[in-house]
Amino acid sequence: MSDKSISGTRLIGRLRELGDIGRDGKGRLSRLAATDTDKLGRDLFVSWLRQAGLEVAVDRIGNIFGIWQLAGSSDERPLLLGSHIDTVINAGQYDGCYGVLAGLEVIETLKEDGFKPNRPIAVAAFTNEEGVRFAPDMLGSLVFAGGLGLNEALAIVGTDGAVLGEELARIGYAGTEPPGFIMPAAYIELHVEQGPVLEQSRIDIGAVENLQGISWQRVDIEGVANHAGTTPMAMRSDAGYGAARITTYLRDLTRDCAGSSVATVGCIELEPNAINVIPSHASLTVDLRSPSEDWLLKHEAALETFVETLAEEERLTISVKRLARTIPVKFDDALVHKIVNAAETRGLSVRRMTSGAGHDAQMIASMAPTAMIFVPSIGGISHNPAERTAEIDLIRGANVLLDVVQELSARVF
Amino acid sequence: MSDKSISGTRLIGRLRELGDIGRDGKGRLSRLAATDTDKLGRDLFVSWLRQAGLEVAVDRIGNIFGIWQLAGSSDERPLLLGSHIDTVINAGQYDGCYGVLAGLEVIETLKEDGFKPNRPIAVAAFTNEEGVRFAPDMLGSLVFAGGLGLNEALAIVGTDGAVLGEELARIGYAGTEPPGFIMPAAYIELHVEQGPVLEQSRIDIGAVENLQGISWQRVDIEGVANHAGTTPMAMRSDAGYGAARITTYLRDLTRDCAGSSVATVGCIELEPNAINVIPSHASLTVDLRSPSEDWLLKHEAALETFVETLAEEERLTISVKRLARTIPVKFDDALVHKIVNAAETRGLSVRRMTSGAGHDAQMIASMAPTAMIFVPSIGGISHNPAERTAEIDLIRGANVLLDVVQELSARVF
Repeated sequence: MSDKSISGTRLIGRLRELGDIGRDGKGRLSRLAATDTDKLGRDLFVSWLRQAGLEVAVDRIGNIFGIWQLAGSSDERPLLLGSHIDTVINAGQYDGCYGVLAGLEVIETLKEDGFKPNRPIAVAAFTNEEGVRFAPDMLGSLVFAGGLGLNEALAIVGTDGAVLGEELARIGYAGTEPPGFIMPAAYIELHVEQGPVLEQSRIDIGAVENLQGISWQRVDIEGVANHAGTTPMAMRSDAGYGAARITTYLRDLTRDCAGSSVATVGCIELEPNAINVIPSHASLTVDLRSPSEDWLLKHEAALETFVETLAEEERLTISVKRLARTIPVKFDDALVHKIVNAAETRGLSVRRMTSGAGHDAQMIASMAPTAMIFVPSIGGISHNPAERTAEIDLIRGANVLLDVVQELSARVF
Repeated sequence: MSDKSISGTRLIGRLRELGDIGRDGKGRLSRLAATDTDKLGRDLFVSWLRQAGLEVAVDRIGNIFGIWQLAGSSDERPLLLGSHIDTVINAGQYDGCYGVLAGLEVIETLKEDGFKPNRPIAVAAFTNEEGVRFAPDMLGSLVFAGGLGLNEALAIVGTDGAVLGEELARIGYAGTEPPGFIMPAAYIELHVEQGPVLEQSRIDIGAVENLQGISWQRVDIEGVANHAGTTPMAMRSDAGYGAARITTYLRDLTRDCAGSSVATVGCIELEPNAINVIPSHASLTVDLRSPSEDWLLKHEAALETFVETLAEEERLTISVKRLARTIPVKFDDALVHKIVNAAETRGLSVRRMTSGAGHDAQMIASMAPTAMIFVPSIGGISHNPAERTAEIDLIRGANVLLDVVQELSARVF
């Protein structure tokens, strides 16, 4: 299957061209969902779909589909590729766009090559994956998969006070297709890793077999402000010490986790935050992620028990508030296996891995066999203008996708 | 010696009257050194000195002295009492003022009672003890004791750009006496504890036998910002975790310290301080205090070693910067003993203790036998409008001072 290859020049040219849309005077890239810059990005993508001779469909939540359908193959469920083209603020140019444009690239390559798929092949750009303007994130794929009602989603008010449904209509992307109008035979999402694992382990391709569940909690600790010189250690109720204990506890808890279950304390804030005053208040955030729901439940419970003991021992009042929670998603093993095989057939190094970030694939996984392909992120950097992937890796990933798509849609005579 | 008592009504009335000078429209009390409100407080204090028939002297750094000197006793070294009447911003009314006004109260009581001291007795209000406007703190007593040159001190520029010497002249308190013009036989400073020890242990009087040395350091930790979901625990350089480890290490280091050696992390700040990003930078402050210089040196060294190991283990770059350092002061044991005796004779409970805060007494201790008397602070609160001491405790402390002064200056026939 490695006799064909995608056009790296075309793929990378389009990534650059799309990545130049939505830059401000300082060159910072932002295409938040359903904004004017998102419209410009969508228009460009749609123009490429039409140039490639694909049928363009937009559903009522604004997801865009480019569909390649041969006469006689329309009874088969389509093979769906894709990702998203909305971005965070001051974004890089690969996150999402790579999966969408590589999906298009694969379809064009097969089409130009005279390949005859036994089923339709479609590429999707899902609405509001980043969730910066409208919460929740992965909104378009969530609605497409039936996880959130259409009307409820269209009524969501953004951080700027705008209503999603009105904004989609305003930019011309309130489509007519009902969400879920395509029931995919399978969904494959190609994406930059957004982490350091592939680069640091010098692996070309990640065959993503599952996606971490995420547990976000905020911990507030009340102690007693007192003079740092005159209050003996045994008489202290030090909220900052409480925050430190929770931070080190989480590290101890996850020290031996084999890489895919992680805990992070990203925020700590103290009051009054003065050198000579024992902190009266601390707040911190806890980010737990695991591919195992059992792990998440067990570690959430362990943290709760630890916090109770800590509060008693240190005379602190500690409250824990849940901020967000998703359950882990396991992808389709047969699909993951095909990705591994395809990479190996091309002589690429490949490893099965877990996605630590959320992706549209986790939503589509509820309606169809799903898997993801990762390529290395330089320095593991993402959501940042410094987000980069080597061109050779961008091309390798798209070629693996090409091979898997070809296998899944080979006309059997 | 417990046959005499000070006038609680007069002492507390004066504390209230002085405490009402320097309040803003919202009732917040601030008399920063050498400001217009400090001048008003000084003028009131001087008027009381004159009313009491004391000789008023002001030295070149603005320290005010009220001296009671009987004919024939002037060959003896004076007994010096006092503290300061400058305040922090939004202050309480007892810190400093209590020691100054109780000193005056003791002198007036003895004078009115016909007591004939064998040496002059003087009360001092030292300039700029708080150090809020001009650094360093305890400036007036430092210069008085010869620890800082007069001209150097007068040239100090305040936080508002004002020059101390010019400000003293402007408010009429650039005196003519050379610093150190009084060489005290002994110095006793009565003060509110500013900590919780006396209240929590239900003790009436603290006989302060030493004063902690202070070591202030700022620790800056550089890690690597990375995605909280995609970066395995073993690949992290988490600056926030480094800050937490230092915080818990300091607690472990001081857990068994018997109350007077303490360590505090009052400030922690993380960057980027985002829930889903591993902190790239952390800064924290370390406040170590001990009555033992050996303890301070040992624990500073232990922290340095710990920080080096931590940096290596966690792939962090850690720098430590010294912000301030004072050495511990041991007060005069015979004087402390007299304070204990005086309290016990009055039927008061008393304990020897360490001062965790800095006081003018630590400067004067370099030129004369010195000790301090503490009374309980309600809730341990100080440098705060909620700073309070029960009236009965204010009176008890002044009576203990009275008895000690009487003993130290009893005319021996």
